[in-house]
Formats: sequence, C-alpha cells, structure tokens
Amino acid sequence: MTSASNAKPAVVLLSGGLDSATSAAIAQASGYEVFALSIDYGQRHRFELESANRVAEALQVAEHKILRIDLAALGGSALTADIDVPQRRSDDEMADGIPITYVPARNTVMLSLALGYAEVLGAADIFIGVNAVDYSGYPDCRPAFIAAFEQVANLATKAGVEGALNFRIHTPLIDFSKAEIIRCGIELGVDYAITHTCYAPNNQGISCGTCDACQLRQKGFADAGIVDPIAYQDEQ
Amino acid sequence: MTSASNAKPAVVLLSGGLDSATSAAIAQASGYEVFALSIDYGQRHRFELESANRVAEALQVAEHKILRIDLAALGGSALTADIDVPQRRSDDEMADGIPITYVPARNTVMLSLALGYAEVLGAADIFIGVNAVDYSGYPDCRPAFIAAFEQVANLATKAGVEGALNFRIHTPLIDFSKAEIIRCGIELGVDYAITHTCYAPNNQGISCGTCDACQLRQKGFADAGIVDPIAYQDEQ
Repeated sequence: MTSASNAKPAVVLLSGGLDSATSAAIAQASGYEVFALSIDYGQRHRFELESANRVAEALQVAEHKILRIDLAALGGSALTADIDVPQRRSDDEMADGIPITYVPARNTVMLSLALGYAEVLGAADIFIGVNAVDYSGYPDCRPAFIAAFEQVANLATKAGVEGALNFRIHTPLIDFSKAEIIRCGIELGVDYAITHTCYAPNNQGISCGTCDACQLRQKGFADAGIVDPIAYQDEQ
Repeated sequence: MTSASNAKPAVVLLSGGLDSATSAAIAQASGYEVFALSIDYGQRHRFELESANRVAEALQVAEHKILRIDLAALGGSALTADIDVPQRRSDDEMADGIPITYVPARNTVMLSLALGYAEVLGAADIFIGVNAVDYSGYPDCRPAFIAAFEQVANLATKAGVEGALNFRIHTPLIDFSKAEIIRCGIELGVDYAITHTCYAPNNQGISCGTCDACQLRQKGFADAGIVDPIAYQDEQ
C-alpha cells in the first residue's frame, strides 16, 4: 500500500493492455487511489500479465492483486483454448460479427471479481477499459451490458443493499476511438512501451503485428500520429 | 458424458450442499441433461467439494466441472478468510442482517462462470439453488438479484446478443422453506446423507451442529418430519 491518502479507493481492472493502462491512469488523474486487479483467466501466453505488473509498478498503485481462474477449462475461445488466432483480417472481416477470440462471459466474470474486491475494500468505484468504438465486436463491451451489470452490483452486495456503497462501473474509454485513447494516455504520461496487446506473440513476447488486436493498435497509433513504441515480428 | 439424450442441456451450480443437490435433482426431473459446475472458491474446508463429487456421481450427470478461484485472496468472509464462524446463534440473531459468512459477490461470480460454461455448451438454462425464505440473509439470494443477472446474461454473451440462446436463470427453491426443499428432494430420491451443509466441520468432516447452516438444516428436517441422515459432533 502507498502512504495514507485522502483519495477515494477504486478498483481498476488491469489486463496489461493499452486500454486498461489508460483507464488506470484516468482513474488516478480523476483523484482515485487505484487498487488494481488482474485476472489470469488461463491466457495462452503470460506476457499480458507481465505487462500488468509493469503498468501497476509504473503507476505506483496502492495494491495489485492477481487472481487465477481457469476459464480455459470451459473452452470456447481462441484466447484460452487450442484454436488458431485469426491473422491479417481486413477491416471488413474484423467488422463482421463477434470473433473467435471472444472469451465467454469474460467481462462478466472480471467485473464480478472486481465487485467482490471492491466490497471488501469499501470501494464504490470500479473502472474497466472497455471500448464500444474500436471494440472488436465483443458484446460485453457495450453500454447496455455495463448498465445492467451496475444494477447487479447494487443488488448483489451487502454494501449495495444496505446503502453503504452505491457501486458505479466507470468506462472512461467507452466512446473513444483507439487514437483518442492513445492521445489521452500520452497526455497522462502512460508508457505504452510496457503494455501488451498481441493475441499471438512469439516465445519472446514479441507482438505478431497481424492479429486483430495488433492491427487495431497499429491503426490507433497511426491515426493519432504517434509512433508505437513496441516492436513487431514483421518489422524484424 | 452419459449416452446420447434428446434432453436440453442445463448448467447446474452444485456446491455439495442440500439445496444445490435438490436443485440438480429438480433440473433432471424437469427433463434437462445436467452439466454440473462446482466452484472451489477457497473454502476453508474441502468437504463441501467432496460432497459435490458424490452428488454428481449419484445423479449420473452428463459432466461435472470444478473450477478453482481464490476468493480467499480478496478476504472479507468467515467462509474464506481467517474469521471465526458464529456458533449457536438464536433465531433472532440469525434473522438480524447479513452475517459474517457472507462471501462478497459470491453468487455473481458463480453465475458468471456458469454463464460462460453454458454459452460454450450451447445451454440456455442455468440452475442455482438459492432460497429467499430460510436464506441466512444473503442479498444475492433474492429474486431481484436473479432477475438483474438474467438481464446481464443476455446482454453479455455472443449467444444472447445474436439470439441463439435466451438465457434463463432457474431458481426452483427460491420460495421453498427448508422443510419444503427436503420434502421435494426426498420425493425425487435425493440422498441427503452425501450432502454437506456445515460451515465449521471438524477434521473428519463431521458437522458441528451449531453454526447457522447446521441449525437451519436441522430445523428443516425437524419441520419436514424426516430424520437427518448425517452425523453431528454434538451427538457423538
């Protein structure tokens, strides 16, 4: 924990990606004391969690917890099961429906755990870096889902029911384009060199540059007119 | 898996307790093929999960998955953290607010995981053995919570959003007294000898007979006019 602070505590879901690092920086800039929560949901690679550690350190958060849960045991996603991650998809292909990298109930599980952590801390505020613009087509990144979960949070908990806490799910990036997220983060001093985005990195953790996530990231930096500080396999 | 069946699949949350065993039996009797899901959320004792295994076997479910998640790392409950379980509380004390055995966001986490499993299976139906009558005062056992979560389920998922599945959270016990649950289970052939209820068993797994859960169970059997088939420490 950091030294005493009068800031209100907030739980921030931190994946190690570009969006969640920016969301954490926004929470801090808004005056919250950040308690970061990373969920190790059986990702096929560990580089994302290493990035989460680095981002938590860089932001000097009050606490960083990593909870492991084996969503891979449930199967059904290219990110947890043994299914190939799509590569070099065109904009049209990416815009067409919900991709195989969708992890069933991922954000519902992550918000549930954030809610438990928040209630134990006495924190009413939960930040999640979802984005409905360049969102890869995931249903659990939309405002309607977030609003419904906020209602669940206040009905599910002792603190919510007894009125001690009025839970709010903050989605500071939900209406931002990827370029706007990056510009906002740069203004707040986020170091994007320590974030990890790629769905299919090599053994050294170098991003492929061709999966949907890499393509969205690269387009975001290009649109923002900022150089992406990470390396890609296809540049090497 | 059991042999081919035309029954619709349902995910049933199975704790190993009396309520969830009854809920699973009701799902089967209603014509569903049961896919049981037990969550090992860092309970202080393992006897509950052993009971879940025995119940899954007795019911010959299609599949039984156990997912581990360390809610104890978040703290805040006598059931996961190093806090004493209350003993020999009177009816008035038990009726007075939400007890220390409340696990933050427990049912939200469990339903989220059941939702992920259901989506992977293509199952629209999820059973949870919550009970709002003899419910120990937990907020996430109430109909308002269940209705809100059902809404989340249909907004959070690819299958829900695309209309392939219309998720329903079934709570067959929600309006039953403990005695009614037991009578219903006995009619369906549930063997309550293999269920585990106690919050504070001894090293051999023998129930204390004095925690809230044991007291509610004993009162339920007494009200139903049925002999509780398990042993208690205070009888020995």
